[in-house]
Amino acid sequence: MHYPATLDRTFFALSDPTRRGILERLGRGPATIGELAEPFGLTLNGVKKHVGILEDVDLVVTAKVGRARECQLGPAGLEDATDWIEEYRRTWQGRLDRFGSYVEEQGAGR
Amino acid sequence: MHYPATLDRTFFALSDPTRRGILERLGRGPATIGELAEPFGLTLNGVKKHVGILEDVDLVVTAKVGRARECQLGPAGLEDATDWIEEYRRTWQGRLDRFGSYVEEQGAGR
Repeated sequence: MHYPATLDRTFFALSDPTRRGILERLGRGPATIGELAEPFGLTLNGVKKHVGILEDVDLVVTAKVGRARECQLGPAGLEDATDWIEEYRRTWQGRLDRFGSYVEEQGAGR
Repeated sequence: MHYPATLDRTFFALSDPTRRGILERLGRGPATIGELAEPFGLTLNGVKKHVGILEDVDLVVTAKVGRARECQLGPAGLEDATDWIEEYRRTWQGRLDRFGSYVEEQGAGR
């Protein structure tokens, strides 16, 4: 399977609870950097750093609105991430029976 | 949404192409640490480190077989990761139209 290098960065972007929280928040509507700072207990620079990582993989887009920078969910639909996980799950399901036998053979769980 | 802290570590485990490669390889059958080292161009310690990260989130299980340590796909079915991404995709789909209008308003892409 070949995937663009962004798959690494996408999974990395999702590995942080604050970044997942920001995405969940933006799912309810746009927010400025300042509006994101308080609920997450972050400094403006802290928000900018997380938003930058999300923006880098198109999970967020930002635009200057007056003196503030507004953040929205970006165009990334996470298709690659979903595809990879689904492919893995298919393989994994196929091996589940063999894994059961393996555990028995090894006497694990006793 | 509440998820166990392993969601962070699971996404992190998937953020590395070598670790995804190891999972794909183990999807075709068990392999020892030594058997994983060569195709990935890693030292034994390099493989152990990656396998340790995968083992930590139950994506891999290992067992001593004779003098070798054999690796297999573990019990983690990535349900939490799938659930999170699916929930995100639902939200994202719902906001796609509004995002379109937003791009027009901002005159982005001109």
